[in-house]
Amino acid sequence: MNGSDGRRVTISTIAREAGVSIPTVSRVLNGRSDVAPGTRERVDELLRRHGYRRRGAPARSEAGLIDLVFNDLDSPWAVEIIRGAEMAAQEGGVGTVVSAVHGDATATQQWLRNLRGRTSDGVVVVNSEVAGGIQVELQRLDVPLVVVDPTGGAEGDVRTIGATNWAGGMAATTHLLSLGHERLGCVAGPARLMCSRARLDGFRAALERAGLDWDEDLVQQGDFSHESGFSCGQALLAAGRHPTGIVVGSDQMAFGVYEALRRRGLQVPDDVSVVGFDDLPQAQWASPPLTTVRQPLSEMGAIAARSVLALARGAQPDVPARMELSTELVVRDSTAPAPN
Amino acid sequence: MNGSDGRRVTISTIAREAGVSIPTVSRVLNGRSDVAPGTRERVDELLRRHGYRRRGAPARSEAGLIDLVFNDLDSPWAVEIIRGAEMAAQEGGVGTVVSAVHGDATATQQWLRNLRGRTSDGVVVVNSEVAGGIQVELQRLDVPLVVVDPTGGAEGDVRTIGATNWAGGMAATTHLLSLGHERLGCVAGPARLMCSRARLDGFRAALERAGLDWDEDLVQQGDFSHESGFSCGQALLAAGRHPTGIVVGSDQMAFGVYEALRRRGLQVPDDVSVVGFDDLPQAQWASPPLTTVRQPLSEMGAIAARSVLALARGAQPDVPARMELSTELVVRDSTAPAPN
Repeated sequence: MNGSDGRRVTISTIAREAGVSIPTVSRVLNGRSDVAPGTRERVDELLRRHGYRRRGAPARSEAGLIDLVFNDLDSPWAVEIIRGAEMAAQEGGVGTVVSAVHGDATATQQWLRNLRGRTSDGVVVVNSEVAGGIQVELQRLDVPLVVVDPTGGAEGDVRTIGATNWAGGMAATTHLLSLGHERLGCVAGPARLMCSRARLDGFRAALERAGLDWDEDLVQQGDFSHESGFSCGQALLAAGRHPTGIVVGSDQMAFGVYEALRRRGLQVPDDVSVVGFDDLPQAQWASPPLTTVRQPLSEMGAIAARSVLALARGAQPDVPARMELSTELVVRDSTAPAPN
Repeated sequence: MNGSDGRRVTISTIAREAGVSIPTVSRVLNGRSDVAPGTRERVDELLRRHGYRRRGAPARSEAGLIDLVFNDLDSPWAVEIIRGAEMAAQEGGVGTVVSAVHGDATATQQWLRNLRGRTSDGVVVVNSEVAGGIQVELQRLDVPLVVVDPTGGAEGDVRTIGATNWAGGMAATTHLLSLGHERLGCVAGPARLMCSRARLDGFRAALERAGLDWDEDLVQQGDFSHESGFSCGQALLAAGRHPTGIVVGSDQMAFGVYEALRRRGLQVPDDVSVVGFDDLPQAQWASPPLTTVRQPLSEMGAIAARSVLALARGAQPDVPARMELSTELVVRDSTAPAPN
């Protein structure tokens, strides 16, 4: 018996064959993390072999749409995530509905109302804070959810795709150390976001590994905006002996640091080296082109879209329920050996 | 008799009352330009008074979606247009499907197939070259179409929203002249695009009005990319006596000019002033922040979305069938008085 003979396999059949309870099969189907790996594999294998489709799945798959929900579309990485998700959705033969809810309950409700009217095969939410407000309702509607989480704030029982922030902070710092810089500054992102903390911890770990002290005066905290990068940059330069290298928690803030340096008459990289984080398209267009830690944003969007489509079709995505994609240091012209 | 009494007014009633033919009423309904302004007003007024709804309109308005189609999502202004269109669609209670067709007939056909399956209330296409391939099919499906056309290439019988490119080129150039610059260079966009030609003509007109000759050696032609801005900038600087001010046809190319100047050890604006075109978000984050000509991209997206929704509901948009929004000079730190 399998999916191709037209008979429909049920969850209870799968449960019986796998030797587990029906709720356990449900947990696997919903991509929940509270299932032992061996059990998940066995259940997955049976679901695949039987070509299991969730009830409701055929109806939903006719929506021909997935939803991509942002808090705001003026986040500089929004378009990168849209690009990846749209490409993967197109490969899957479905369209991509893009929405912004502006951290606003009314807009979120309106989006849900619109979604209920037209149906959706699945929802990719960018930013876990948004996800919290809609997760329950989507479960009720049996619409699968995946969170793309460049800020690393996801909690609880939800599929997420993030990036290796700690390793990225470490790589950025190690790069400057290898160029002979010993006095390093850091412009970190908001402390409430896990990604900021992970990047900052990577910075500190690299310094400690090199046997260098880190100076709390040389760590400034911004909010990822250009303006905050500018003011944090100014604060670092106001310190008695300014750092010769600055590790910055986002490209956007790194551009603000560029401007603080320019206003002080300092050259990048001759006087001060700067490393960003994100690798937005703008990083290569900056002057000088910015050395930065690449987050694979369009890949994160693509994997999220593929996962949600797999879930919509009653299959298991071929990626873990919570994953971090590798970050990668991209060396351009904003870093150079430490001045003598 | 009007829409609120529940009886349905027909095109022939409108035609009779307006004293025109039925095809003329159709032309007005389809937003075509080949109708005399007086006739259009009379027909519009009757359509409004009778609360006319197109046949099929109620069915289509249930799609709860509009489509926003780009050639590529890596165009730097894509996200600005998405932002405006999504906001206006949300106000109208509908979702926004974003697609990229990559100048590719197969992708375009797949998008049309998806659209036929799920229906759409209307389509906004960004870039007239894309519009050409789908216009006939959308007419057949009775789905209204509006083109957002930052490159100004629209032809034929289609609603377009562009920007005043000639006036923008003139304003950028006049700004540099008012700062005492007399030797001006220009990095123009591709000659095949009307917007590039209009901006370049505005540059030349400003010089002529000021009684200055323009030197063909000081006009370079790029393709809107950062790389082409860089190489055109290098070419301008290689000329015997380099210009003290450069008018650039896009922000993206202006950033390339920044890099060409930096590599030559020249400072913006102390040695050379630079003016861009677009006012992308990046313009204010550049170092120094870029003086540029603002195209109201998000407004263009919003007006396009509102127009297409009005058409979907059988109403006339309250904007002309072909319009250009005003551009505006935004003065930042990349322009200064000419060096002595």
